[in-house]
Amino acid sequence: MSASKTVRKVEVLSPVPADIDIANSVEPFHISEIAKDLNLSPKHYDLYGKYKAKVLLSVLDELEGSGDGYYVVVGGITPTPLGEGKSTTTVGLCQALGAFLDKKVVTCLRQPSQGPTFGIKGGAAGGGYSQVIPMDEFNLHLTGDIHAITAANNLLAAAIDTRVFHESTQSDKALLNRLCPPNKEGKRSFSDIMFRRLKKLGISKNKPEELSPQEVKKFARLDIDPASITWRRVMDVNDRFLRKITVGQGPEEKGMVRETGFDISVASEIMAVLALTTSLADMRERLGKMVIGNSKAGDPVTADDLGVGGALTVLMKDAINPTLMQTLEGTPVLVHAGPFANIAHGNSSIVADKIALKLAGPGGFVVTEAGFGSDIGTEKFMNIKCRYSSLTPQCAVIVATIRALKMHGGGPEVVAGKPLDRAYTTENVSLVEAGCVNLARHISNTKAYGVNVVVAVNMFATDSEAELNAVRNAALAAGAYDAVVCTHHAHGGKGAVDLGIAVQKACENVTQPLKFLYPLDISIKEKIEAIARSYGASGVEYSEQLPLISNFRFLSSHPKMISSFAPNLSNCERVKRNMVLSFSCGEKSLWEIFGAFFLAEKQIEMYSKQGFSGLPICMAKTQYSFSHNAAEKGAPTGFSLPIRDVRASIGAGFIYPLVGTMSTMPGLPTRPCFYDIDLDTATGKVIGLS
Amino acid sequence: MSASKTVRKVEVLSPVPADIDIANSVEPFHISEIAKDLNLSPKHYDLYGKYKAKVLLSVLDELEGSGDGYYVVVGGITPTPLGEGKSTTTVGLCQALGAFLDKKVVTCLRQPSQGPTFGIKGGAAGGGYSQVIPMDEFNLHLTGDIHAITAANNLLAAAIDTRVFHESTQSDKALLNRLCPPNKEGKRSFSDIMFRRLKKLGISKNKPEELSPQEVKKFARLDIDPASITWRRVMDVNDRFLRKITVGQGPEEKGMVRETGFDISVASEIMAVLALTTSLADMRERLGKMVIGNSKAGDPVTADDLGVGGALTVLMKDAINPTLMQTLEGTPVLVHAGPFANIAHGNSSIVADKIALKLAGPGGFVVTEAGFGSDIGTEKFMNIKCRYSSLTPQCAVIVATIRALKMHGGGPEVVAGKPLDRAYTTENVSLVEAGCVNLARHISNTKAYGVNVVVAVNMFATDSEAELNAVRNAALAAGAYDAVVCTHHAHGGKGAVDLGIAVQKACENVTQPLKFLYPLDISIKEKIEAIARSYGASGVEYSEQLPLISNFRFLSSHPKMISSFAPNLSNCERVKRNMVLSFSCGEKSLWEIFGAFFLAEKQIEMYSKQGFSGLPICMAKTQYSFSHNAAEKGAPTGFSLPIRDVRASIGAGFIYPLVGTMSTMPGLPTRPCFYDIDLDTATGKVIGLS
Repeated sequence: MSASKTVRKVEVLSPVPADIDIANSVEPFHISEIAKDLNLSPKHYDLYGKYKAKVLLSVLDELEGSGDGYYVVVGGITPTPLGEGKSTTTVGLCQALGAFLDKKVVTCLRQPSQGPTFGIKGGAAGGGYSQVIPMDEFNLHLTGDIHAITAANNLLAAAIDTRVFHESTQSDKALLNRLCPPNKEGKRSFSDIMFRRLKKLGISKNKPEELSPQEVKKFARLDIDPASITWRRVMDVNDRFLRKITVGQGPEEKGMVRETGFDISVASEIMAVLALTTSLADMRERLGKMVIGNSKAGDPVTADDLGVGGALTVLMKDAINPTLMQTLEGTPVLVHAGPFANIAHGNSSIVADKIALKLAGPGGFVVTEAGFGSDIGTEKFMNIKCRYSSLTPQCAVIVATIRALKMHGGGPEVVAGKPLDRAYTTENVSLVEAGCVNLARHISNTKAYGVNVVVAVNMFATDSEAELNAVRNAALAAGAYDAVVCTHHAHGGKGAVDLGIAVQKACENVTQPLKFLYPLDISIKEKIEAIARSYGASGVEYSEQLPLISNFRFLSSHPKMISSFAPNLSNCERVKRNMVLSFSCGEKSLWEIFGAFFLAEKQIEMYSKQGFSGLPICMAKTQYSFSHNAAEKGAPTGFSLPIRDVRASIGAGFIYPLVGTMSTMPGLPTRPCFYDIDLDTATGKVIGLS
Repeated sequence: MSASKTVRKVEVLSPVPADIDIANSVEPFHISEIAKDLNLSPKHYDLYGKYKAKVLLSVLDELEGSGDGYYVVVGGITPTPLGEGKSTTTVGLCQALGAFLDKKVVTCLRQPSQGPTFGIKGGAAGGGYSQVIPMDEFNLHLTGDIHAITAANNLLAAAIDTRVFHESTQSDKALLNRLCPPNKEGKRSFSDIMFRRLKKLGISKNKPEELSPQEVKKFARLDIDPASITWRRVMDVNDRFLRKITVGQGPEEKGMVRETGFDISVASEIMAVLALTTSLADMRERLGKMVIGNSKAGDPVTADDLGVGGALTVLMKDAINPTLMQTLEGTPVLVHAGPFANIAHGNSSIVADKIALKLAGPGGFVVTEAGFGSDIGTEKFMNIKCRYSSLTPQCAVIVATIRALKMHGGGPEVVAGKPLDRAYTTENVSLVEAGCVNLARHISNTKAYGVNVVVAVNMFATDSEAELNAVRNAALAAGAYDAVVCTHHAHGGKGAVDLGIAVQKACENVTQPLKFLYPLDISIKEKIEAIARSYGASGVEYSEQLPLISNFRFLSSHPKMISSFAPNLSNCERVKRNMVLSFSCGEKSLWEIFGAFFLAEKQIEMYSKQGFSGLPICMAKTQYSFSHNAAEKGAPTGFSLPIRDVRASIGAGFIYPLVGTMSTMPGLPTRPCFYDIDLDTATGKVIGLS
């Protein structure tokens, strides 16, 4: 039926077996077969075993000038903690287009973090008969990109603390001499990367001995303010005990302790750089200009100032190539970068989408996934990713489930690991109808970008016809181009054929140009406020307005409160000491300290002063509500959005406000997924992965 | 000239260009060509790009019953901090055997750590015209094995702290219920891994509800003593600020802070498991039985008790396959596991050597490298690795340089990064002769294992004929089978042809069986003492005899001293607090605390009581002296060897005494190697890697 040679018809069982059993029941095509079907020859990719290949960036140069396929982004409504099957729908839609509708199609997915794979959530390869295979390789290690990010992130972190340490014990002259050691002939010289710093400092001399004492100081002494360091270490493990730590307690570190913490690796700025870069040369520049903190004079200090931008690029040189895999039905998938749309931007990479669009070609389809609800994933897809890529989507799919809509309509709380309330498994049309306010806002917000919106209702066995009709009607009333019920979990691509047809029509009939939510040339605060309004907020509160200032006595007896309101404390040993003092000094000194170090507005001011106000905004916000409060379901309005902290990812290219309390390091439950995971050592197959 | 189709003659330049320039001047063979030459077909390996392939363990099953090649181990004399070219000699010897002497040969090298690659030392692919290529791929990421080790090690670490945390807030019953959640039908069950713990506890029940309250407590509550946790987190980065840290300072961790630290990844027990395992099933068992600390009752707690042994195996399932690469002259190399012979056992893997011996076949050669001097690398090769593998080497090569021998003869200190003293670049035969005591002891120690010893003098341009002759004479006088000057750095395999011939003769003429330095069935202390005697020590001091006990007042004003004498402090928040108190209480309480927690003898007693006394010993000792004191050159005698601490790697299978102060996490200098490293973004080539 299809022009593709790698299409595979999978026999569907009922009830649907476990994901890993479905995945293991199919012998995947050798990945070179999938590549061949995309007109890729062996010189275009590097194999990583039999079922994965890294597609080389050079493909883009080769196909420059050839036409692009249609560009479809898949977002969702505000999800329950169980997830509404967005990856599954993305895969199912592509299986429909490729294996049933005879289209060229490439799926672009994000590489999952190993943290949740072993934690509560499990893997992220889709589910049922809509999966990427081999699902164990997809979920674990893949081709090492996240490991490369971890290595690069932590090399930079080590470089920062070690530099502060060495500067503390050495004179300017000694520093210069060590930075520029003599060669065999006794001559000292600058390494290439040092010329970047010299240029930034406006020093045009070519040899170390030509520097004046003042220039030696400027060049050799970065003078990093330890309290200003925003660069944290990362690990791709759910390790809650690393959220806040003190480092440097060994005797050889001479008392230079500092409070800091680990984030999950995928929250690293380097992950964002990987997702947003467009070439090796661009990645080199972005990695070099990542800002890790300020000098004591308030100037931003970069990875290149530390001499490490080149080494970071070397560590990331293979990671820039996306990984080719396949769906159960044999359609091609590019996996690259970007999970965690709540604390990061949560989209797969620009390079993967660009390669995919060329490989799909005119009339073909690229379906890319944006994390969580459209308030975060799709918003960032449009305003950050498309802004940097200059790519234009034609269609946005919004995945909805009856379960999540009932929750938004007022249904009982949905908790992962606990049995679902009966409300979710028996017909209740009015609950569904009430919940459609959430869907409606996602539709109108997404439509505002100029794309056609298709709602995909990911059907569960317990959903009734009347409930499904209610969603369809509400979606069309809210301005959706179409709304389609699909059963790809149970039936594979066949269950998403109607969705495929709807998406095709939506793509062919787009009438408007891409419109961003905000222009770049307004202030940081105006941009934050534009996004807040799209959430339904009536305004924005920056952290100076938090109640703690008015009652330091209460806070001094509640250290947990201090920590949640003043999270930067963890980066700032010096301030902490001051604060302890301040509790015995009264409100004013506390105010002064918070005023100097913690206020979101102060940080916005600083970043504006440093010349970074032209960047787009990447909000770190809960995925469980349009608002900052995960318990606020439906379509809340009239609230004030609290901005607790503002950070900057200068290399990746965005300002990064933290909305309320957002953990950047997940934890493990009492019984993590890993209890079920093992290797069948006789067959070498992974068991128990979900 | 050679039977091998992949032999490449490299044109040799003088002076020798930079390593990366030599490496980049050669277009490597596609690794499938190298594999073909070893009679490997595509089903035997997984490609990782064009120049690396993982050879699958199943090759061993296929070749079972076929004969082995000769087995040659390369060790060295006690090195200078500059390294004496052991990897270079290993590669040069193999190039001689394969490309000039027409032998089947496989080189087995260890995967380098990325820490030193970006730190002081640089890469570890050999040097000059004796290198493994592509050297950037060899030195960075390779096929992800160390990243897998890091991920597995840190998943276990997260599981430990999180379990302690969850147990602190839950009743026995609640713990059991969370560990065994109900399925959709409301039934609770044990997962497979839980039956391992039940079996260990002697509980033969099959369902959670059958457990008595006493059994619920025993099963569900691991009751880990936080002060006993020996499992540390790891990172493959030289990050000195992580040597000693406090974790759990976030408000959600409710004050459950703990002092701990990070080691460099290659020091992880999981690296040792990888190096010493013999099959997937064996690796599963070893990973599961790794001990992370004790329960408060003193029983060892394992990875399987934490439910994570299966997940660790899944993370390591690809890492168990060694990586095939090639030398400059096209001979095959297997890279796998094991650097850092000072703080770890520092040998490449048993599985790599086993596969190599089958691929080389009768009459062929496998040359494997043991880290640093023979006192550590070769000793561990023989007494740990060969004991577990049942393989027998025929020949041991000891690499020596005139430079290092002069240092042992009394030459001035050699410091990395500083110019070499003139003594090392001008003729001084008597200095060389005086230093040969070091060589002689390495020869006699190594000969005692029953192998023939060949000394390879790695020649530098400044070495004189008289100096070289002095070494040859001393080596033969000390019982070496032969002693050969080689110039493989300058000339490639051609420069090591004489060495190759000597090694061949040594292999063909071995007359003795393999003899270990100690039997396994003596006590831990007797084993430690046997090794200490081989270092020249007259006895062993365990940490209770350290002087600090007699003068706590001095110590209390010198916190650095406390830390160096009582390193376990870093694992033990509770003890630290007690100790602070004890400083105001007098000598007795300090003694009691140290007596209870820190004494090496106490730990030996504990491990013996726990049934682990039958394991071999892996000493963590400086590589810069036979003794514990790096400044003691030559062949020191009559000293007492201080054992500061004793740890156990039960999964890997050895007891692990720390001799004096040994850092398990290196640091970065003021100007790390990374300053020179960058990517040429036009060609994609790495520059500046050394």
